[in-house]
Amino acid sequence: MTDFFKDIQPVAYEGPDSPNPLAFRHYDPDEVVMGKRMEDHLRFAVAWWHSFAWEGGDPFGGPTFLRPWQGSDSMEAARLKAEAAFEMFDILGQPFFCFHDADIRPEGDSFAESLRNFEEITDLIGQKMESRRVRLLWGTANLFSHRRYMAGAATNPDPDVFAYAAATVKACMDVTHRLGGQNYVLWGGREGYETLLNTDMGRELDHMGRFLNMVVDYKHKIGFKGTILVEPKPQEPSKHQYDFDVATCIGFLRKYGLEEEVKLNLEQGHAILAGHSFEHEIALAVTEGMFGSIDMNRNDYQSGWDTDQFPNNMPEVALAYYHILRGGGFTTGGTNFDAKLRRQSLDAQDLIAAHVGAMDVCARGLKAAAAMIKDRGLESALRDRYDGWDTPRAQAMLNSDLQTIFDRILADGIEPHPRSGRQEMLENYVNRFV
Amino acid sequence: MTDFFKDIQPVAYEGPDSPNPLAFRHYDPDEVVMGKRMEDHLRFAVAWWHSFAWEGGDPFGGPTFLRPWQGSDSMEAARLKAEAAFEMFDILGQPFFCFHDADIRPEGDSFAESLRNFEEITDLIGQKMESRRVRLLWGTANLFSHRRYMAGAATNPDPDVFAYAAATVKACMDVTHRLGGQNYVLWGGREGYETLLNTDMGRELDHMGRFLNMVVDYKHKIGFKGTILVEPKPQEPSKHQYDFDVATCIGFLRKYGLEEEVKLNLEQGHAILAGHSFEHEIALAVTEGMFGSIDMNRNDYQSGWDTDQFPNNMPEVALAYYHILRGGGFTTGGTNFDAKLRRQSLDAQDLIAAHVGAMDVCARGLKAAAAMIKDRGLESALRDRYDGWDTPRAQAMLNSDLQTIFDRILADGIEPHPRSGRQEMLENYVNRFV
Amino acid sequence: MTDFFKDIQPVAYEGPDSPNPLAFRHYDPDEVVMGKRMEDHLRFAVAWWHSFAWEGGDPFGGPTFLRPWQGSDSMEAARLKAEAAFEMFDILGQPFFCFHDADIRPEGDSFAESLRNFEEITDLIGQKMESRRVRLLWGTANLFSHRRYMAGAATNPDPDVFAYAAATVKACMDVTHRLGGQNYVLWGGREGYETLLNTDMGRELDHMGRFLNMVVDYKHKIGFKGTILVEPKPQEPSKHQYDFDVATCIGFLRKYGLEEEVKLNLEQGHAILAGHSFEHEIALAVTEGMFGSIDMNRNDYQSGWDTDQFPNNMPEVALAYYHILRGGGFTTGGTNFDAKLRRQSLDAQDLIAAHVGAMDVCARGLKAAAAMIKDRGLESALRDRYDGWDTPRAQAMLNSDLQTIFDRILADGIEPHPRSGRQEMLENYVNRFV
Amino acid sequence: MTDFFKDIQPVAYEGPDSPNPLAFRHYDPDEVVMGKRMEDHLRFAVAWWHSFAWEGGDPFGGPTFLRPWQGSDSMEAARLKAEAAFEMFDILGQPFFCFHDADIRPEGDSFAESLRNFEEITDLIGQKMESRRVRLLWGTANLFSHRRYMAGAATNPDPDVFAYAAATVKACMDVTHRLGGQNYVLWGGREGYETLLNTDMGRELDHMGRFLNMVVDYKHKIGFKGTILVEPKPQEPSKHQYDFDVATCIGFLRKYGLEEEVKLNLEQGHAILAGHSFEHEIALAVTEGMFGSIDMNRNDYQSGWDTDQFPNNMPEVALAYYHILRGGGFTTGGTNFDAKLRRQSLDAQDLIAAHVGAMDVCARGLKAAAAMIKDRGLESALRDRYDGWDTPRAQAMLNSDLQTIFDRILADGIEPHPRSGRQEMLENYVNRFV
Repeated sequence: MTDFFKDIQPVAYEGPDSPNPLAFRHYDPDEVVMGKRMEDHLRFAVAWWHSFAWEGGDPFGGPTFLRPWQGSDSMEAARLKAEAAFEMFDILGQPFFCFHDADIRPEGDSFAESLRNFEEITDLIGQKMESRRVRLLWGTANLFSHRRYMAGAATNPDPDVFAYAAATVKACMDVTHRLGGQNYVLWGGREGYETLLNTDMGRELDHMGRFLNMVVDYKHKIGFKGTILVEPKPQEPSKHQYDFDVATCIGFLRKYGLEEEVKLNLEQGHAILAGHSFEHEIALAVTEGMFGSIDMNRNDYQSGWDTDQFPNNMPEVALAYYHILRGGGFTTGGTNFDAKLRRQSLDAQDLIAAHVGAMDVCARGLKAAAAMIKDRGLESALRDRYDGWDTPRAQAMLNSDLQTIFDRILADGIEPHPRSGRQEMLENYVNRFV
Repeated sequence: MTDFFKDIQPVAYEGPDSPNPLAFRHYDPDEVVMGKRMEDHLRFAVAWWHSFAWEGGDPFGGPTFLRPWQGSDSMEAARLKAEAAFEMFDILGQPFFCFHDADIRPEGDSFAESLRNFEEITDLIGQKMESRRVRLLWGTANLFSHRRYMAGAATNPDPDVFAYAAATVKACMDVTHRLGGQNYVLWGGREGYETLLNTDMGRELDHMGRFLNMVVDYKHKIGFKGTILVEPKPQEPSKHQYDFDVATCIGFLRKYGLEEEVKLNLEQGHAILAGHSFEHEIALAVTEGMFGSIDMNRNDYQSGWDTDQFPNNMPEVALAYYHILRGGGFTTGGTNFDAKLRRQSLDAQDLIAAHVGAMDVCARGLKAAAAMIKDRGLESALRDRYDGWDTPRAQAMLNSDLQTIFDRILADGIEPHPRSGRQEMLENYVNRFV
Repeated sequence: MTDFFKDIQPVAYEGPDSPNPLAFRHYDPDEVVMGKRMEDHLRFAVAWWHSFAWEGGDPFGGPTFLRPWQGSDSMEAARLKAEAAFEMFDILGQPFFCFHDADIRPEGDSFAESLRNFEEITDLIGQKMESRRVRLLWGTANLFSHRRYMAGAATNPDPDVFAYAAATVKACMDVTHRLGGQNYVLWGGREGYETLLNTDMGRELDHMGRFLNMVVDYKHKIGFKGTILVEPKPQEPSKHQYDFDVATCIGFLRKYGLEEEVKLNLEQGHAILAGHSFEHEIALAVTEGMFGSIDMNRNDYQSGWDTDQFPNNMPEVALAYYHILRGGGFTTGGTNFDAKLRRQSLDAQDLIAAHVGAMDVCARGLKAAAAMIKDRGLESALRDRYDGWDTPRAQAMLNSDLQTIFDRILADGIEPHPRSGRQEMLENYVNRFV
Repeated sequence: MTDFFKDIQPVAYEGPDSPNPLAFRHYDPDEVVMGKRMEDHLRFAVAWWHSFAWEGGDPFGGPTFLRPWQGSDSMEAARLKAEAAFEMFDILGQPFFCFHDADIRPEGDSFAESLRNFEEITDLIGQKMESRRVRLLWGTANLFSHRRYMAGAATNPDPDVFAYAAATVKACMDVTHRLGGQNYVLWGGREGYETLLNTDMGRELDHMGRFLNMVVDYKHKIGFKGTILVEPKPQEPSKHQYDFDVATCIGFLRKYGLEEEVKLNLEQGHAILAGHSFEHEIALAVTEGMFGSIDMNRNDYQSGWDTDQFPNNMPEVALAYYHILRGGGFTTGGTNFDAKLRRQSLDAQDLIAAHVGAMDVCARGLKAAAAMIKDRGLESALRDRYDGWDTPRAQAMLNSDLQTIFDRILADGIEPHPRSGRQEMLENYVNRFV
């Protein structure tokens, strides 16, 4: 056992009035909301990379955290890191975790050595999972940090990089399958460009489409029952990323015949960077039948980059869950905290408290969303607003043509009568629940 | 004749050294570039709305221009405005113009009266075109200014508004056809939402898809040979607009079976608002075979709204035309100045000078782009960078599967060798031409 | 009496569980918070311009509201507007209102006629105030809408415009004084530039400094006891505005010797546009002793312009009031809603409900802020963090010099030991109250 | 000698038609512009940190460059790095360079060891300078990368960090003085905050003011004749930085009595992040008499963080130099390239070419700016626009009061007559030179 989290007890639900910074005040896993336990609704996951692999550096500064397992690329350090991770899972009691290959194993001198390292650590992880309830929400491959990927993975101008990436994803899918992962995620941080001057977008998009088709084929070949998810982000690290936002990803999936096979993993910060709200991205994915899972972090609205902070604004979180619940809630997906501590938050206690606060904010948001669903106020406002379209005449018009409609407008002298959109009243309505 | 432009002579080409602010220094319509006259490459158009209908107001201030034809909604004023417009076309000598219905005719008390006004003015415009070379680049309907459209046109919750919009588009397509228009454009400034709380996105998108299919059907019915264009913009006036950007529009067109029928009209300012560069949007549309036409204005990078300024940065303009020329140049499309004077630029001379400067910047950009095309420096850099993909081995890999690639990586111990992306050298290369 | 608000009863406090959209659920004017009535803490004001003068237009569309008093520039319409305004004040019961001269009177054909109109209407307003408790929070002059101000008021290149503006402010200060206004505000929407190419910043800033000194002198001359406030905004309508943000305004006031005479009126949306949070701007003004009043509206984070929406995010509002309460609360200032309905919100009910929801959000925010003040959690965290500075050694160092400090560092081998900044724990702490 | 730049010859001026990517096409150091050699106008400097210390990492990826001197913190590597640096200076022939202490020496285990390392390397640098013309434009201390500075240097809550920073600056000032540096720069990347919740702004600002006063005192004590410069940046790495922009810095300097002692070092990318144009920041600093030096790099307008790219847009560069020349040009300052290669630009040739292209763009910009100065077109437009203020009547008004002006407006019935701001004509004018 490490002593990193020593003196920190498993986090318990103590109710809204508890002043204990390491207790849940709102998240009670067993509380039933809309007929389901909160744990089963929210399906929280801890992200290995931010919690255990990130060292506190930023573009203008080096590591600040100095965790016992950091500063070395050895297998021993990787094992220590895994120990710490499971200690934290025991403390938080959250049902899931997620990882990239590069988070959990040292890079080897060759693909073969990296693979051996990966398998050894995932064996260890598998053993630790046996005695616990914690499960793998999703696995993924880091195809963006190593310099070999600097110009992309599936979209690299060098076919050897495509190959290296394909082999890496194959290995990660195998491990995800073996550990019972419920999804497999692809985030294409380097699938895009730094400058159009050196980029053949048409060719790169075709390669990306082909790569993803290979992933889907392999899923079926090995019998993996989880969901394949892609994760939109408009930029950073690349100047432009092909998986820009939900609408772009859906267009891409349709173009390459993947719309029945792949769903989306959505992140608040990425939505913001793309000029959307988080609820917009969720609602659009739900509308198109392609909603999968979420990364529930937040961006600082003042910062033009991905700040990956823990969520803390309840009204915003509630609207996200409202659209998720309206879409039927999570199936294989869940609420992953793709969130990192601020680099001045040095202590183990900060790491636990950050997750506790985030889980509480989500729990409050979920309950508020469920109350709005139950109250049906937004739903009925929507029904009233569009009810004109439910008439036979309106439907007939929709199936007619411009000439027919023109003739009717001219004949009947129709002049529409605008009705209030009632935005402020609906916002006030939401404020009754948040 | 109006006396608005009195004392302003037709603008002539006087060469780069002319200090005359009302002379072309770079745009010589007859100069041949890449085997084609510049006029036929650039296909400049003047936008009726900004040049003649806009009065100089902004959200914090009223009209500043006080043109002789402004301040009244009468047919007499509309005729005076048309006179002034053709006087300006005579001065600039540009080959095209564009209009919305609402730019050229007063709104009537009923659809029928508006239609009569529209037909009377378009008859006048038709007569004026007979004695001139100036042609209609595109017509369009204003489906966003009147309060009836406050909640959308095709996507309005009220079917009567859909009907009113459909009838209006039918009338505008008829007129565009009659005047020999080369394209018909739809910009959906209110097709989107102010708040998700009152919006059914799925239903609205389906209505928008149906509407556009009606437009395409009507085009074929009346034998209009021009191109139907939609124009992406992410927001403003709406908080979110469905035609967000090129990628979103292409996805939408594919979903509703319109990808063979509709192309895109791209605007620099809209690209910027969506988080893209103009050349990105052009290159993506070209790559997908959906490039149609451009609105060549610019946004102030400091302002978060659409400033619609005349273009004045030659290096940026050159990159736009580079991608247009690479895609084969314009067919039915052209270079429309969807640009308005600053509201302090009160004089007729300002209006002429703004267009002259813009045409000159475009001429310089076009010539620089043509020189880069001819030099083939960017093309050959691109070929070098991707040449690894042209081997049979790479193509075979692309058609294989993850397991096969994995086996090869493991067997051959492949480790890719990154090559420089040479961004700065390519940027310097471009600077040899701009 | 108008019948615009007919059937709408005065708004009453009905408690948190009331489903009545036109009742206060949190704002009870007489509830005592930190020893003061909520009404006296919050000092709510209604903005005449957005509520009564704005017609629902935006840069892409015309009026939508069609209020009975709109569409005419007559004195009769102005009187009807004033009737409606006081009816709304009676309904809401808020203690204050604010106006620009241009909101309440029609522009005349000359300065003299405008002045007569202004005086006639302000007499009417004065009469209406006599029988009510509602008071004037601040008066101000609209020096940005009329075309004469298109290039600035105090900073106009034309001295006649400076003069016209000066005379206008004199008249508005007189009226504000006569009506018992508690502050006089200057917002310089056109004091800035559209392009540096035609702008002499040094000269314009000097003129602006001189103008403000005249205002201060006149205040003393007439014995006005209220506070002179300037209102920062970085841009819009101008590309650049001189009163960019709090820091810029404070620097300006110091340069022109006004730091003891002028304070600041802060708006959330303006803070956002300047790249700050609202609480930053408040905290900085408080720190510098220059906090005056607030415009409590919000911007949509997705939109790059001033959306002036009613506040609805309680956690954000609470942080604003936290810093206001820490600074001692309002003196002459208050909470003005410089907020407008969305242009689709057509009904009288929307206008009332928007204010009711905003007042409730502010009431919740105030109570949460007061609870944090009382709990002292943030205050004690701050004290702990900086306590090293309270030692004599630290203070001695602060008064020493580089050489002395260098010698000590070298002699003592000091290496600082970073401590956690505890950001997430503090954010969680705040979430216990909001 | 290293062999890093082997086969790269000193860069020569070959004229505009040269296709050689490693030749100057516009920068001829000896060409005389406005009576001064271009070298003496532009005063180019290479930045040690980006060119030699940065390894190609970004927030999502590790090093890509693998320079021979990277990957080790030894003195041997530091010496090799210095060798390479001077080889590059010999190749480029630029007159200046700049460094932070941390760029050139390895961090030691103690302050004393770091100091010994620093002195040993600066001795080596001094020796190398003896046989060359290259000089030190400015020195600076890195007070932001090491974890001890994570919460600020001068503004740290821990007085030991303030002391450590003060001692470090003292050492860097000594070295800068010894090496004949022409300026000393302070950039406060961590002087600001991540969250207001843990920040006492008033105290921190006072500490920062005191720190800077110590720096100024020490300058005088040691007889350093160079200029002390501070460098504005609004955010990144901090959420908020106190030296937000030019206006904020000037306000700060005035408040702490430093306005006669300290000037500003301005960077294009920082201007953009603060919501300004580069020329705005320069013009404002010139107007206030506080212009010092520039970092001539650029930000990608699409990216919300500091991309530090080499300049490549000539029209923008020309406007920057126009305002510098109007202000009299550089005195102790110069044109530093605070610019880094894109991380895919792996080769030594990329590093040279990037600087060559940047120097050429600056040379073109300077020549265009000089031509505009000589032509006086902008100057005379400015004079015309403000000439009304040069009358005795206008000046008398400026020295009068509101009542006097009011009386005159009322008596004379003055109504100002707006004149065109001629923005487009002035933009076209600039385009004649760029």
